[in-house]
Amino acid sequence: MTIVLYDLKGRDGLRYSPYCWRIRYALTHKGLDIEDVGVGFTEKEKIAFSGQQLVPVIVDRNNGGKVILDSWQIANYLDDTYPNKPLFGSAAARGTARFINNWVGTTFFPQVGPMIIADLFQRVRDVDQPYFRASREKRYGVALEKLQEGREQRLPAFSASLEPLRMLVKEQDFICGETPGYADYILFGSFQWPGNASDFELLAEDDPIYVWRQRMAGLYDGLAQRAKFGPTN
Amino acid sequence: MTIVLYDLKGRDGLRYSPYCWRIRYALTHKGLDIEDVGVGFTEKEKIAFSGQQLVPVIVDRNNGGKVILDSWQIANYLDDTYPNKPLFGSAAARGTARFINNWVGTTFFPQVGPMIIADLFQRVRDVDQPYFRASREKRYGVALEKLQEGREQRLPAFSASLEPLRMLVKEQDFICGETPGYADYILFGSFQWPGNASDFELLAEDDPIYVWRQRMAGLYDGLAQRAKFGPTN
Repeated sequence: MTIVLYDLKGRDGLRYSPYCWRIRYALTHKGLDIEDVGVGFTEKEKIAFSGQQLVPVIVDRNNGGKVILDSWQIANYLDDTYPNKPLFGSAAARGTARFINNWVGTTFFPQVGPMIIADLFQRVRDVDQPYFRASREKRYGVALEKLQEGREQRLPAFSASLEPLRMLVKEQDFICGETPGYADYILFGSFQWPGNASDFELLAEDDPIYVWRQRMAGLYDGLAQRAKFGPTN
Repeated sequence: MTIVLYDLKGRDGLRYSPYCWRIRYALTHKGLDIEDVGVGFTEKEKIAFSGQQLVPVIVDRNNGGKVILDSWQIANYLDDTYPNKPLFGSAAARGTARFINNWVGTTFFPQVGPMIIADLFQRVRDVDQPYFRASREKRYGVALEKLQEGREQRLPAFSASLEPLRMLVKEQDFICGETPGYADYILFGSFQWPGNASDFELLAEDDPIYVWRQRMAGLYDGLAQRAKFGPTN
Protein backbone atom coordinates (compact mmCIF):
# COMPACT_ATOMS: atom_id res chain seq x y z
CA MET A 1 0.00 0.00 0.00
CA THR A 2 1.37 3.34 -0.96
CA ILE A 3 0.67 7.01 -0.82
CA VAL A 4 0.23 8.70 -4.17
CA LEU A 5 2.06 12.02 -4.38
CA TYR A 6 0.98 14.37 -7.15
CA ASP A 7 4.06 16.48 -7.76
CA LEU A 8 4.74 19.28 -10.20
CA LYS A 9 6.88 18.12 -13.11
CA GLY A 10 9.11 20.20 -15.34
CA ARG A 11 11.18 19.39 -18.41
CA ASP A 12 12.26 15.73 -18.45
CA GLY A 13 10.32 15.15 -15.25
CA LEU A 14 12.42 17.63 -13.23
CA ARG A 15 10.99 18.19 -9.75
CA TYR A 16 11.24 21.72 -8.39
CA SER A 17 8.10 22.40 -6.42
CA PRO A 18 9.18 23.52 -2.93
CA TYR A 19 5.92 22.35 -1.40
CA CYS A 20 6.16 18.93 -3.00
CA TRP A 21 9.76 18.47 -1.84
CA ARG A 22 8.61 19.09 1.72
CA ILE A 23 6.10 16.30 1.41
CA ARG A 24 8.48 13.93 -0.37
CA TYR A 25 10.88 14.30 2.56
CA ALA A 26 8.07 13.96 5.09
CA LEU A 27 6.78 10.74 3.48
CA THR A 28 10.30 9.32 3.30
CA HIS A 29 10.94 10.33 6.93
CA LYS A 30 7.87 8.28 7.87
CA GLY A 31 9.05 5.31 5.82
CA LEU A 32 5.93 5.41 3.64
CA ASP A 33 6.04 4.19 0.04
CA ILE A 34 5.46 6.84 -2.57
CA GLU A 35 3.76 6.46 -5.93
CA ASP A 36 5.00 9.48 -7.81
CA VAL A 37 2.71 11.17 -10.34
CA GLY A 38 4.02 14.15 -12.28
CA VAL A 39 1.65 16.99 -13.11
CA GLY A 40 2.64 19.57 -15.71
CA PHE A 41 1.48 23.17 -15.38
CA THR A 42 -1.20 22.53 -18.02
CA GLU A 43 -2.24 19.09 -16.77
CA LYS A 44 -4.36 20.22 -13.85
CA GLU A 45 -7.09 17.81 -14.94
CA LYS A 46 -5.00 15.10 -13.28
CA ILE A 47 -5.87 16.57 -9.88
CA ALA A 48 -9.38 17.71 -10.74
CA PHE A 49 -10.65 15.04 -8.30
CA SER A 50 -9.17 17.13 -5.49
CA GLY A 51 -11.47 20.04 -6.27
CA GLN A 52 -8.62 22.51 -6.78
CA GLN A 53 -5.55 23.08 -8.91
CA LEU A 54 -2.51 23.10 -6.63
CA VAL A 55 0.03 20.41 -5.83
CA PRO A 56 0.99 18.66 -3.67
CA VAL A 57 -2.04 16.44 -3.37
CA ILE A 58 -1.75 13.05 -1.72
CA VAL A 59 -4.06 10.06 -1.95
CA ASP A 60 -3.58 7.73 0.99
CA ARG A 61 -4.26 4.19 -0.25
CA ASN A 62 -3.68 2.91 3.29
CA ASN A 63 -6.62 4.97 4.48
CA GLY A 64 -9.43 4.37 2.00
CA GLY A 65 -7.96 6.64 -0.64
CA LYS A 66 -8.28 9.72 1.52
CA VAL A 67 -7.34 12.89 -0.38
CA ILE A 68 -5.36 15.64 1.37
CA LEU A 69 -4.37 19.03 -0.04
CA ASP A 70 -1.85 21.69 0.92
CA SER A 71 1.63 20.86 2.18
CA TRP A 72 1.00 22.12 5.73
CA GLN A 73 -2.23 20.13 6.02
CA ILE A 74 -0.55 17.06 4.55
CA ALA A 75 2.30 17.23 7.07
CA ASN A 76 -0.21 17.51 9.91
CA TYR A 77 -2.28 14.64 8.51
CA LEU A 78 0.78 12.43 8.22
CA ASP A 79 1.88 13.09 11.79
CA ASP A 80 -1.61 12.52 13.17
CA THR A 81 -2.23 9.37 11.10
CA TYR A 82 1.25 7.83 11.34
CA PRO A 83 2.56 8.92 14.74
CA ASN A 84 5.75 6.86 14.57
CA LYS A 85 8.86 8.86 13.70
CA PRO A 86 7.25 12.23 14.44
CA LEU A 87 7.70 15.16 12.09
CA PHE A 88 6.91 17.56 14.93
CA GLY A 89 6.98 15.79 18.30
CA SER A 90 4.89 18.28 20.30
CA ALA A 91 2.22 20.92 19.85
CA ALA A 92 4.87 23.56 20.48
CA ALA A 93 7.02 22.15 17.68
CA ARG A 94 4.04 22.21 15.33
CA GLY A 95 3.27 25.84 16.16
CA THR A 96 6.83 27.04 15.81
CA ALA A 97 7.28 25.08 12.56
CA ARG A 98 4.22 26.90 11.30
CA PHE A 99 5.93 30.18 12.10
CA ILE A 100 8.83 29.04 9.91
CA ASN A 101 6.36 27.98 7.23
CA ASN A 102 4.93 31.52 7.30
CA TRP A 103 8.38 33.09 7.36
CA VAL A 104 9.39 31.22 4.20
CA GLY A 105 6.23 32.45 2.50
CA THR A 106 6.71 36.08 3.43
CA THR A 107 10.51 36.41 3.41
CA PHE A 108 12.17 33.67 1.35
CA PHE A 109 9.91 33.20 -1.67
CA PRO A 110 9.32 36.88 -2.50
CA GLN A 111 13.08 37.38 -2.74
CA VAL A 112 13.99 34.11 -4.47
CA GLY A 113 11.26 34.08 -7.10
CA PRO A 114 12.45 37.13 -9.06
CA MET A 115 16.05 35.87 -8.93
CA ILE A 116 15.37 32.55 -10.70
CA ILE A 117 12.11 32.84 -12.59
CA ALA A 118 13.54 33.20 -16.10
CA ASP A 119 15.86 30.25 -15.47
CA LEU A 120 12.89 28.27 -14.23
CA PHE A 121 11.02 29.11 -17.43
CA GLN A 122 13.75 27.30 -19.39
CA ARG A 123 13.09 24.17 -17.33
CA VAL A 124 9.35 24.23 -17.84
CA ARG A 125 8.11 21.77 -20.49
CA ASP A 126 7.71 23.35 -23.95
CA VAL A 127 3.99 22.66 -23.83
CA ASP A 128 3.66 24.51 -20.51
CA GLN A 129 5.83 27.51 -21.33
CA PRO A 130 3.15 29.79 -22.81
CA TYR A 131 0.92 29.28 -19.76
CA PHE A 132 3.82 29.75 -17.35
CA ARG A 133 5.07 32.95 -18.95
CA ALA A 134 1.63 34.51 -19.29
CA SER A 135 0.51 33.71 -15.75
CA ARG A 136 3.77 34.80 -14.09
CA GLU A 137 4.18 37.97 -16.13
CA LYS A 138 0.63 38.88 -15.24
CA ARG A 139 1.41 38.29 -11.55
CA TYR A 140 4.66 40.27 -11.54
CA GLY A 141 3.66 42.84 -14.16
CA VAL A 142 7.00 42.57 -15.95
CA ALA A 143 8.89 40.21 -18.29
CA LEU A 144 10.54 37.23 -16.59
CA GLU A 145 13.95 38.11 -18.00
CA LYS A 146 13.61 41.65 -16.65
CA LEU A 147 12.86 40.30 -13.17
CA GLN A 148 16.17 38.49 -12.99
CA GLU A 149 18.25 41.47 -14.14
CA GLY A 150 20.67 42.69 -11.49
CA ARG A 151 20.01 39.72 -9.25
CA GLU A 152 23.62 39.65 -8.04
CA GLN A 153 23.00 42.99 -6.34
CA ARG A 154 20.11 41.47 -4.39
CA LEU A 155 22.15 38.66 -2.87
CA PRO A 156 23.51 40.59 0.14
CA ALA A 157 20.01 41.52 1.36
CA PHE A 158 18.83 37.98 0.72
CA SER A 159 21.78 36.56 2.63
CA ALA A 160 21.14 38.92 5.55
CA SER A 161 17.51 37.85 5.73
CA LEU A 162 18.64 34.24 6.22
CA GLU A 163 20.56 35.10 9.38
CA PRO A 164 18.07 33.42 11.78
CA LEU A 165 18.61 30.14 9.91
CA ARG A 166 22.37 30.63 9.62
CA MET A 167 22.79 31.24 13.37
CA LEU A 168 20.82 28.08 14.06
CA VAL A 169 22.61 25.63 11.75
CA LYS A 170 25.93 26.99 12.91
CA GLU A 171 25.04 25.62 16.35
CA GLN A 172 23.29 22.35 15.54
CA ASP A 173 23.16 19.86 12.67
CA PHE A 174 19.47 20.27 11.95
CA ILE A 175 16.83 22.89 12.68
CA CYS A 176 15.05 20.28 14.76
CA GLY A 177 18.18 19.30 16.70
CA GLU A 178 20.30 16.19 16.22
CA THR A 179 17.87 14.66 13.73
CA PRO A 180 15.80 16.37 11.04
CA GLY A 181 12.10 17.15 11.34
CA TYR A 182 9.44 18.94 9.38
CA ALA A 183 10.94 22.41 9.93
CA ASP A 184 14.06 21.14 8.15
CA TYR A 185 11.93 19.85 5.30
CA ILE A 186 10.10 23.16 4.99
CA LEU A 187 13.32 25.05 4.49
CA PHE A 188 15.22 22.45 2.51
CA GLY A 189 12.22 21.92 0.23
CA SER A 190 12.13 25.67 -0.33
CA PHE A 191 15.80 25.70 -1.34
CA GLN A 192 15.11 22.87 -3.78
CA TRP A 193 13.08 25.33 -5.81
CA PRO A 194 15.99 27.60 -6.83
CA GLY A 195 18.34 24.64 -6.54
CA ASN A 196 16.65 22.60 -9.26
CA ALA A 197 15.18 25.40 -11.35
CA SER A 198 18.38 27.41 -11.76
CA ASP A 199 22.17 27.25 -11.68
CA PHE A 200 22.36 30.65 -9.97
CA GLU A 201 24.22 30.26 -6.67
CA LEU A 202 22.36 31.79 -3.75
CA LEU A 203 24.84 30.78 -1.07
CA ALA A 204 28.61 30.83 -0.70
CA GLU A 205 30.17 27.41 -0.16
CA ASP A 206 31.42 28.39 3.29
CA ASP A 207 27.96 29.51 4.42
CA PRO A 208 26.70 27.27 7.26
CA ILE A 209 23.39 27.13 5.38
CA TYR A 210 25.19 25.69 2.35
CA VAL A 211 26.71 23.00 4.57
CA TRP A 212 23.31 22.22 6.11
CA ARG A 213 21.80 21.93 2.61
CA GLN A 214 24.46 19.38 1.68
CA ARG A 215 23.63 17.47 4.84
CA MET A 216 19.92 17.53 4.00
CA ALA A 217 20.54 16.45 0.40
CA GLY A 218 22.47 13.45 1.66
CA LEU A 219 19.61 12.13 3.83
CA TYR A 220 17.76 8.96 2.83
CA ASP A 221 20.47 7.70 0.46
CA GLY A 222 20.65 11.02 -1.32
CA LEU A 223 16.93 11.51 -1.83
CA ALA A 224 17.41 14.99 -3.33
CA GLN A 225 19.47 13.52 -6.17
CA ARG A 226 17.57 10.25 -6.49
CA ALA A 227 14.24 12.01 -6.91
CA LYS A 228 15.47 15.02 -8.87
CA PHE A 229 13.87 13.68 -12.03
CA GLY A 230 10.61 11.85 -11.40
CA PRO A 231 8.46 9.93 -13.84
CA THR A 232 6.91 11.96 -16.62
CA ASN A 233 3.61 10.04 -16.41
CA MET B 1 13.53 27.65 48.00
CA THR B 2 13.51 30.16 45.24
CA ILE B 3 15.28 31.18 42.11
CA VAL B 4 16.86 34.60 42.18
CA LEU B 5 16.25 36.58 39.01
CA TYR B 6 18.52 39.53 38.39
CA ASP B 7 16.43 41.80 36.18
CA LEU B 8 17.16 45.19 34.67
CA LYS B 9 15.37 47.98 36.55
CA GLY B 10 14.38 51.38 35.25
CA ARG B 11 12.80 54.41 36.91
CA ASP B 12 10.68 53.43 39.93
CA GLY B 13 11.69 49.80 39.40
CA LEU B 14 10.10 49.62 35.93
CA ARG B 15 10.91 46.32 34.21
CA TYR B 16 11.50 46.51 30.45
CA SER B 17 14.25 44.06 29.61
CA PRO B 18 12.87 41.75 26.88
CA TYR B 19 15.25 38.96 27.88
CA CYS B 20 14.30 39.18 31.54
CA TRP B 21 10.58 39.11 30.73
CA ARG B 22 11.11 35.87 28.84
CA ILE B 23 12.66 34.33 31.93
CA ARG B 24 10.06 35.76 34.30
CA TYR B 25 7.36 34.07 32.22
CA ALA B 26 9.37 30.85 31.96
CA LEU B 27 9.88 30.68 35.74
CA THR B 28 6.22 31.40 36.37
CA HIS B 29 5.21 28.79 33.77
CA LYS B 30 7.24 26.26 35.75
CA GLY B 31 5.64 27.33 39.02
CA LEU B 32 8.99 28.32 40.51
CA ASP B 33 9.22 31.05 43.13
CA ILE B 34 11.10 34.14 42.07
CA GLU B 35 13.24 36.40 44.22
CA ASP B 36 13.40 39.55 42.15
CA VAL B 37 16.56 41.68 42.24
CA GLY B 38 16.64 44.89 40.22
CA VAL B 39 19.88 45.93 38.57
CA GLY B 40 20.28 49.47 37.25
CA PHE B 41 22.41 50.14 34.20
CA THR B 42 25.21 51.39 36.45
CA GLU B 43 24.89 48.70 39.11
CA LYS B 44 26.64 45.92 37.27
CA GLU B 45 28.65 45.12 40.39
CA LYS B 46 25.52 43.31 41.62
CA ILE B 47 26.11 40.62 39.01
CA ALA B 48 29.91 40.70 39.07
CA PHE B 49 29.77 37.19 40.60
CA SER B 50 28.48 35.94 37.23
CA GLY B 51 31.67 36.99 35.47
CA GLN B 52 29.90 39.22 32.97
CA GLN B 53 27.63 42.26 32.82
CA LEU B 54 24.36 41.22 31.21
CA VAL B 55 21.00 40.32 32.70
CA PRO B 56 19.15 38.06 33.09
CA VAL B 57 21.21 36.04 35.50
CA ILE B 58 19.59 33.43 37.71
CA VAL B 59 20.85 31.82 40.88
CA ASP B 60 19.09 28.53 41.53
CA ARG B 61 18.88 28.11 45.31
CA ASN B 62 17.22 24.72 44.77
CA ASN B 63 20.36 23.53 43.04
CA GLY B 64 23.28 24.60 45.20
CA GLY B 65 23.14 28.21 44.06
CA LYS B 66 23.97 27.35 40.48
CA VAL B 67 24.45 30.48 38.35
CA ILE B 68 23.11 30.56 34.79
CA LEU B 69 23.50 33.37 32.25
CA ASP B 70 21.79 34.29 29.00
CA SER B 71 18.07 33.95 28.47
CA TRP B 72 18.33 31.12 25.94
CA GLN B 73 20.67 29.13 28.20
CA ILE B 74 18.45 29.80 31.20
CA ALA B 75 15.35 28.53 29.38
CA ASN B 76 17.20 25.37 28.38
CA TYR B 77 18.52 24.90 31.91
CA LEU B 78 15.05 25.29 33.38
CA ASP B 79 13.52 22.76 31.01
CA ASP B 80 16.32 20.26 31.61
CA THR B 81 16.33 20.71 35.38
CA TYR B 82 12.57 21.02 35.94
CA PRO B 83 11.02 18.84 33.23
CA ASN B 84 7.44 19.23 34.47
CA LYS B 85 5.35 21.68 32.48
CA PRO B 86 7.75 21.77 29.53
CA LEU B 87 8.69 25.05 27.92
CA PHE B 88 9.61 23.20 24.71
CA GLY B 89 8.35 19.61 24.76
CA SER B 90 10.65 18.15 22.13
CA ALA B 91 14.05 18.68 20.54
CA ALA B 92 12.27 19.94 17.42
CA ALA B 93 10.39 22.53 19.47
CA ARG B 94 13.63 23.69 21.04
CA GLY B 95 15.31 24.05 17.64
CA THR B 96 12.45 25.92 16.03
CA ALA B 97 12.07 28.17 19.09
CA ARG B 98 15.73 29.00 18.68
CA PHE B 99 14.99 30.04 15.09
CA ILE B 100 12.38 32.43 16.47
CA ASN B 101 14.89 33.63 19.09
CA ASN B 102 17.30 34.43 16.24
CA TRP B 103 14.56 36.02 14.15
CA VAL B 104 13.68 38.41 16.96
CA GLY B 105 17.33 39.39 17.27
CA THR B 106 17.82 40.05 13.58
CA THR B 107 14.40 41.38 12.55
CA PHE B 108 12.42 42.69 15.52
CA PHE B 109 14.97 44.46 17.72
CA PRO B 110 16.82 46.36 14.97
CA GLN B 111 13.52 47.91 13.90
CA VAL B 112 12.01 48.50 17.33
CA GLY B 113 15.07 49.97 19.04
CA PRO B 114 15.29 53.16 17.01
CA MET B 115 11.51 53.71 17.34
CA ILE B 116 11.49 53.81 21.16
CA ILE B 117 14.98 54.57 22.39
CA ALA B 118 14.45 58.24 23.33
CA ASP B 119 11.24 57.30 25.17
CA LEU B 120 13.15 54.56 26.95
CA PHE B 121 15.77 57.11 28.00
CA GLN B 122 13.06 59.00 29.91
CA ARG B 123 12.30 55.83 31.87
CA VAL B 124 15.90 55.14 32.79
CA ARG B 125 16.81 56.18 36.35
CA ASP B 126 18.38 59.65 36.58
CA VAL B 127 21.59 58.14 37.88
CA ASP B 128 21.81 55.81 34.85
CA GLN B 129 20.88 58.32 32.14
CA PRO B 130 24.38 59.63 31.34
CA TYR B 131 25.69 56.08 30.89
CA PHE B 132 22.66 55.05 28.84
CA ARG B 133 22.80 58.00 26.49
CA ALA B 134 26.55 57.82 25.95
CA SER B 135 26.66 54.07 25.32
CA ARG B 136 23.62 54.03 22.99
CA GLU B 137 24.62 57.12 21.03
CA LYS B 138 28.05 55.56 20.55
CA ARG B 139 26.42 52.36 19.29
CA TYR B 140 24.00 54.10 16.90
CA GLY B 141 26.25 57.02 15.98
CA VAL B 142 23.41 59.53 16.35
CA ALA B 143 21.38 61.30 19.07
CA LEU B 144 18.59 59.21 20.61
CA GLU B 145 15.96 61.83 19.78
CA LYS B 146 17.12 61.84 16.16
CA LEU B 147 16.71 58.07 15.96
CA GLN B 148 13.03 58.28 16.81
CA GLU B 149 12.26 61.01 14.27
CA GLY B 150 9.88 59.89 11.57
CA ARG B 151 9.11 56.63 13.31
CA GLU B 152 5.49 56.67 12.13
CA GLN B 153 6.77 56.20 8.57
CA ARG B 154 8.60 53.05 9.62
CA LEU B 155 5.53 51.32 11.02
CA PRO B 156 4.26 49.81 7.72
CA ALA B 157 7.57 48.01 7.08
CA PHE B 158 7.69 46.88 10.70
CA SER B 159 4.13 45.60 10.52
CA ALA B 160 4.88 43.73 7.28
CA SER B 161 7.89 42.04 8.86
CA LEU B 162 5.63 40.64 11.59
CA GLU B 163 3.46 38.78 9.07
CA PRO B 164 4.79 35.29 9.98
CA LEU B 165 3.64 35.87 13.57
CA ARG B 166 0.36 37.48 12.52
CA MET B 167 -0.59 34.56 10.25
CA LEU B 168 0.12 32.18 13.11
CA VAL B 169 -1.84 33.84 15.92
CA LYS B 170 -4.75 34.36 13.56
CA GLU B 171 -5.02 30.57 13.43
CA GLN B 172 -4.25 29.54 17.01
CA ASP B 173 -4.33 31.08 20.47
CA PHE B 174 -0.63 30.71 21.16
CA ILE B 175 2.49 30.23 19.07
CA CYS B 176 2.92 26.88 20.79
CA GLY B 177 -0.67 25.80 20.19
CA GLU B 178 -3.51 25.74 22.69
CA THR B 179 -1.23 26.58 25.60
CA PRO B 180 1.75 28.93 25.71
CA GLY B 181 5.38 27.80 25.62
CA TYR B 182 8.78 29.38 25.44
CA ALA B 183 8.35 30.62 21.86
CA ASP B 184 5.41 32.69 23.14
CA TYR B 185 7.56 34.05 25.94
CA ILE B 186 10.36 34.96 23.54
CA LEU B 187 8.05 37.11 21.47
CA PHE B 188 5.87 38.47 24.23
CA GLY B 189 8.94 39.34 26.28
CA SER B 190 10.30 41.18 23.27
CA PHE B 191 7.10 43.23 22.96
CA GLN B 192 7.35 44.10 26.65
CA TRP B 193 10.41 46.16 25.80
CA PRO B 194 8.61 48.79 23.67
CA GLY B 195 5.44 48.18 25.67
CA ASN B 196 6.91 49.28 28.99
CA ALA B 197 9.55 51.69 27.75
CA SER B 198 7.29 53.78 25.53
CA ASP B 199 3.70 54.86 24.89
CA PHE B 200 4.24 54.66 21.13
CA GLU B 201 1.75 52.20 19.65
CA LEU B 202 3.38 49.63 17.39
CA LEU B 203 0.21 47.68 16.59
CA ALA B 204 -3.35 48.53 15.64
CA GLU B 205 -5.97 47.29 18.08
CA ASP B 206 -7.51 45.01 15.46
CA ASP B 207 -4.17 43.37 14.67
CA PRO B 208 -4.25 39.67 15.65
CA ILE B 209 -0.85 40.22 17.25
CA TYR B 210 -2.37 42.90 19.49
CA VAL B 211 -5.05 40.44 20.55
CA TRP B 212 -2.43 37.76 21.26
CA ARG B 213 -0.42 40.23 23.34
CA GLN B 214 -3.48 40.95 25.45
CA ARG B 215 -3.96 37.20 25.90
CA MET B 216 -0.33 36.81 26.95
CA ALA B 217 -0.51 39.77 29.35
CA GLY B 218 -3.48 38.15 31.07
CA LEU B 219 -1.67 34.89 31.82
CA TYR B 220 -0.75 34.01 35.40
CA ASP B 221 -3.16 36.45 37.00
CA GLY B 222 -1.96 39.29 34.84
CA LEU B 223 1.75 38.78 35.38
CA ALA B 224 2.67 41.52 32.90
CA GLN B 225 0.87 44.10 35.03
CA ARG B 226 1.69 42.58 38.42
CA ALA B 227 5.41 42.57 37.71
CA LYS B 228 5.58 45.79 35.69
CA PHE B 229 7.29 47.56 38.58
CA GLY B 230 9.63 45.34 40.52
CA PRO B 231 11.53 46.08 43.72
CA THR B 232 14.15 48.80 43.48
CA ASN B 233 16.57 46.90 45.73
